[in-house]
Amino acid sequence: MRGVIMHAPGDVRVEERENPRIQEPTDAVIRIVAACVCGSDLWPYRGADTPDQQAMGHEYVGVVEQIGDAVVTVVPGDFVVGSFVISDNTCAICAAGYQSRCVEAIFVDGEIGTQAEYARIPHADGTLVATPGQPDEDLIPSLLAASDVLGTGWFAAVAAEVGPGKSVAVVGDGAVGLMGVLAAKQLGAQKIIAMSRHADRQELARDFGASDIVVERGDQGVERIKELTDGLGADCVIEAVGSQESMMQAIRSTRPGGHVGYVGVSHDVELPGGELFFGLVHLHGGPAPVRRFLPELIQLIWDRTIDPGKVFDRTLPLEQAAEAYAAMDSRESVKVLLKP
Amino acid sequence: MRGVIMHAPGDVRVEERENPRIQEPTDAVIRIVAACVCGSDLWPYRGADTPDQQAMGHEYVGVVEQIGDAVVTVVPGDFVVGSFVISDNTCAICAAGYQSRCVEAIFVDGEIGTQAEYARIPHADGTLVATPGQPDEDLIPSLLAASDVLGTGWFAAVAAEVGPGKSVAVVGDGAVGLMGVLAAKQLGAQKIIAMSRHADRQELARDFGASDIVVERGDQGVERIKELTDGLGADCVIEAVGSQESMMQAIRSTRPGGHVGYVGVSHDVELPGGELFFGLVHLHGGPAPVRRFLPELIQLIWDRTIDPGKVFDRTLPLEQAAEAYAAMDSRESVKVLLKP
Repeated sequence: MRGVIMHAPGDVRVEERENPRIQEPTDAVIRIVAACVCGSDLWPYRGADTPDQQAMGHEYVGVVEQIGDAVVTVVPGDFVVGSFVISDNTCAICAAGYQSRCVEAIFVDGEIGTQAEYARIPHADGTLVATPGQPDEDLIPSLLAASDVLGTGWFAAVAAEVGPGKSVAVVGDGAVGLMGVLAAKQLGAQKIIAMSRHADRQELARDFGASDIVVERGDQGVERIKELTDGLGADCVIEAVGSQESMMQAIRSTRPGGHVGYVGVSHDVELPGGELFFGLVHLHGGPAPVRRFLPELIQLIWDRTIDPGKVFDRTLPLEQAAEAYAAMDSRESVKVLLKP
Repeated sequence: MRGVIMHAPGDVRVEERENPRIQEPTDAVIRIVAACVCGSDLWPYRGADTPDQQAMGHEYVGVVEQIGDAVVTVVPGDFVVGSFVISDNTCAICAAGYQSRCVEAIFVDGEIGTQAEYARIPHADGTLVATPGQPDEDLIPSLLAASDVLGTGWFAAVAAEVGPGKSVAVVGDGAVGLMGVLAAKQLGAQKIIAMSRHADRQELARDFGASDIVVERGDQGVERIKELTDGLGADCVIEAVGSQESMMQAIRSTRPGGHVGYVGVSHDVELPGGELFFGLVHLHGGPAPVRRFLPELIQLIWDRTIDPGKVFDRTLPLEQAAEAYAAMDSRESVKVLLKP
């Protein structure tokens, strides 16, 4: 089959890879219907992480081709959405809703790599969720978004304890930040402040539910958030970048007692203990347990209550994956969908 | 009046200080019945913070002597317990339960200093809570503990989301850590693991409700906690030291999705973003909003349901404050009560 391999920073190629097959009775093999490039794929692409002939891709929707003998919740022919972390969904950590740290967790990136025609999904029962039926073509981008960016933005909002009447600030205007805006709107937030200095992303943010846009960053950005929140800071702040600057922006924009939900993959971040201590905020985040939210998110998409698929502003054939990476790297595209 | 001044690290003296008087209509002046030395007082005593002729002391119980015209909840003669941070208890931050970051917050240490015969308490209505009557003498240590160490340990347990059936690890065997053990017991924790290598403190910890003692520290300590919690880490971890080592000990002892409640005043702590991210824990802490818990804690003490006063293992006259500091500095005493 064909699949994306990153050989070195900036060097993404579509190559022949071995066809996946059932190895364990809990496996499924799926035919990928849509995959995409994640903001986190740009870290190794830009050289911040070291790629090592890595099979890329961890977002995916597809059709089940084969199942192992122990698989009971999906059958061949089912259209499925999966999480970017394999989980058994039965261990104590999964039971508490933290499937991304399942005792059997495997990150889909690397060995599996779903920017490809097919993928073997271990622990299929604990990882995949079937849609209520075969989806209309126009729902596919939204279902694909659920696999990571929507699930991650949603988790960030839940981690930030977004709820009715709350003020929410969102740091980061990439796909995950935009999904955080959508999630905040769905969860009933009263004021949703998107921090963005790009007109196209500001527009998307407003479309997803942002009530205010803040273009300033750093101390000025924090001041603007405070001005918009009675001088106190936001009740809830979603962090969707993962840099030192964005984390401090998030923490400083939160009122004492408020909640930071952070999902930007942390790079070279050191949080100063004293400031955190006297800030008296709640901090929660990490790799999103997307599996926790998939049934609910799939239903919201199926019912056309939400349309997260709008976050994809370009579709390319899998063979043009290199172009997809380049477009996202240059911020020409917010997020590119890949069709095998 | 007489009061404690710290002139330099290790240099604590009891001196004449100006008698406090009502300055604002929201003030009360109280006669201090009991005060004490806090673990956090040892930071400047040991030179980790810079004292600058500072009026020491922030824990206190006393009798109201005078009130300003605007004070309505306490009257002269009332026996009162106060928090170590002045709060109006009416602003949005107080209303959310974060009185230690009240928009009018004043730390009692420094200008006020309750290791003294009298103290002016601003925002008396928002800071002081009267006991149901004049307390029996033997209740005074426990009421004094409520002013900080109990309130702080209780907040740490609440911040760590301690509840029925939960496993709890407590990092730090000082007074606050021991109060965290007591709080965890009251809040229904099933397993309470105290980390301590001092026999006297281990005994107190068991007395307050610890079910297990771990003497190991660092990686070995984390391994022991995991062994005691199905290999996963504790649901809830209370951090009551404030050092890099203790914070990392706490974070690493927490299972994914679990909660760290940290109240040790942070000194030279830098939290590594990547480890925090993949740890997927909740982190919440800071200066405890003791005022939130005072009514409940006073009642528990009044009803003799809890006996936090046992944390005081020595009582000295105020004039011997220097001896009290030295005894706590050498860990000869857990906590010393001072009688003006």
